[in-house]
Amino acid sequence: MNKKPGCDVVFYEAFEEEELSLRKLLDTSVKCHYTWKTIQESGHVEPPADIVSIRTQSRIPSSWGSSLRAVITRSTGYDHILPFIESSPAQLLAAYLPEYAARAVAEQAMLLWTALLRKMPLQQSAMKTFSRDGLTGRELLGKTVCVVGVGRIGSQIAGIAKALDMQVIGVDIRSDKFPDITYCSIHDAVSQADIIVCAASLTESSKALLSYSTLKKVRPGTLLVNIARGEISPSEDLLKLIREGTLGGIGLDVYEFEDDLASVLRGGRELSSIEDIEQMNSVAATLELLQCPMVISLPHNAFNTAESLERKCLNTARNVLGFIKSGSFISPIPGRRCPRV
Amino acid sequence: MNKKPGCDVVFYEAFEEEELSLRKLLDTSVKCHYTWKTIQESGHVEPPADIVSIRTQSRIPSSWGSSLRAVITRSTGYDHILPFIESSPAQLLAAYLPEYAARAVAEQAMLLWTALLRKMPLQQSAMKTFSRDGLTGRELLGKTVCVVGVGRIGSQIAGIAKALDMQVIGVDIRSDKFPDITYCSIHDAVSQADIIVCAASLTESSKALLSYSTLKKVRPGTLLVNIARGEISPSEDLLKLIREGTLGGIGLDVYEFEDDLASVLRGGRELSSIEDIEQMNSVAATLELLQCPMVISLPHNAFNTAESLERKCLNTARNVLGFIKSGSFISPIPGRRCPRV
Repeated sequence: MNKKPGCDVVFYEAFEEEELSLRKLLDTSVKCHYTWKTIQESGHVEPPADIVSIRTQSRIPSSWGSSLRAVITRSTGYDHILPFIESSPAQLLAAYLPEYAARAVAEQAMLLWTALLRKMPLQQSAMKTFSRDGLTGRELLGKTVCVVGVGRIGSQIAGIAKALDMQVIGVDIRSDKFPDITYCSIHDAVSQADIIVCAASLTESSKALLSYSTLKKVRPGTLLVNIARGEISPSEDLLKLIREGTLGGIGLDVYEFEDDLASVLRGGRELSSIEDIEQMNSVAATLELLQCPMVISLPHNAFNTAESLERKCLNTARNVLGFIKSGSFISPIPGRRCPRV
Repeated sequence: MNKKPGCDVVFYEAFEEEELSLRKLLDTSVKCHYTWKTIQESGHVEPPADIVSIRTQSRIPSSWGSSLRAVITRSTGYDHILPFIESSPAQLLAAYLPEYAARAVAEQAMLLWTALLRKMPLQQSAMKTFSRDGLTGRELLGKTVCVVGVGRIGSQIAGIAKALDMQVIGVDIRSDKFPDITYCSIHDAVSQADIIVCAASLTESSKALLSYSTLKKVRPGTLLVNIARGEISPSEDLLKLIREGTLGGIGLDVYEFEDDLASVLRGGRELSSIEDIEQMNSVAATLELLQCPMVISLPHNAFNTAESLERKCLNTARNVLGFIKSGSFISPIPGRRCPRV
């Protein structure tokens, strides 16, 4: 695909409500094109505009670095575009969306752990025969939540848990940011937890942090919720932990190799076509996890409330308009050169 | 069925975990028989023991009044056995279980409204194709919850909502019990609410209180949760309100004519065999409600946590043992004669 004549920005992975909101904010002054597909699903070989905007599932081809002027990831995490940025010429600018959805994500985490504590999937299927066997859940009151990664989102999760009269233990490299949180090591924390919530950014040190060897130390029946990045809790490890009863339930909003998983689930790709054997095994394990009765899986949708969508689209529009007007972003990715013209 | 020789108590509607716990507490001193069936499903024509214990779905035949010594309803509500008690001889004693599950029920209400606000059923089905269209939910923060019936359970619901930074409006005949709650009339309350939670006891004045004519005054998209009694929000009215979009979602743990619904769902009874036309239409409407994407239905399970089950079984055992030892209950139904011997 060649550049669309007169098109300034192509938005990949744009969902219905997001497109609607962005059109209202941008369409009078900027030429935009929207698609729900990833770059890979779109089959684009060359950049279709000077600016491209993705969410978390597109991989920007490294060959686009020389002809693109700017990229915007419409997400708070930007680990997925760092490899592309680092291999690109210094004049390419990159933006992300800081802190637009912390409360929305924290509330989705709370929804997942409450649904797991109350065996909601079993309650719902028991409704078919109005049966009550095996549906005894547990109350939130007094339970211990271990929050792994106490940043913007993790601190909101801790706040919600405390408001619900739960105990909170934090795990973070920095234990001085939130003085009212009790911190301890990951190993001590998981062994005391009723619920472990992963809210960490994906970095070299958090990758596979919630592995089989870490989580096998939990008390049997402990619940795990991940609303951060799937790569922190590898799918094959989770499958083993739930099958052997070490974990009593898993709530997932994010998945390891999520872009591959999404293409397989959308039917555009066969599992066997995933070349990398490690990735294929992980996606196969995720597909099995989705079938487990005590696994609740949501489609990377924790950010998606009307309130956060409004902030997100406004932030996106401000970045686009700022770049077009002045050649710089209002929320550039930290560490990346940000020239003012 | 004749009385079981040497059997002191028959427990109807006993689910797996409940039977297990009651056996531990009672089986050394009392002869008990347990069944998951209702009295009607058991086909018992005469009382099988001096004491029978039910939950909310059995109807005690009025003919049993003269030969039974005592009944225990293992529920906090006792509206369903009042007609039987009132038509029975004065020496028949009756017990219920006060306040064993207020927190458990309040937490199930919170689970239901959070799941509805976040369109959880749609999120879960969208996971099949990893789609995100139409999944934009709303945040709890700042939303207004109208609690109808501010008693033991309603006040816990209000407490949880406030802890989550939501606004609370109470509706109750008595507006002086909880001074930190703002009360107003049902009509003013429903028109301001984002979420209406029914936590009222079933009485003549609460029956069909949340009818079509009351609820048509809500703002379009308002959510309704009922964890109290189905008769307060008639199924045919709810079906109309969700179909026309007046209600945006409904979370139900209880159902109108729940005993009939349960027998139909368990396959023991045909819908068309329900003689009363009003009851048949209501059950038919409930069955249609269960198919609506934005209706979450749970099998009258709000009370069912490990914590409340422990309190419930302990209370039940204390009533049984108290009656056998001294001929009186520790938690008799208020207004019923309670002789001490």
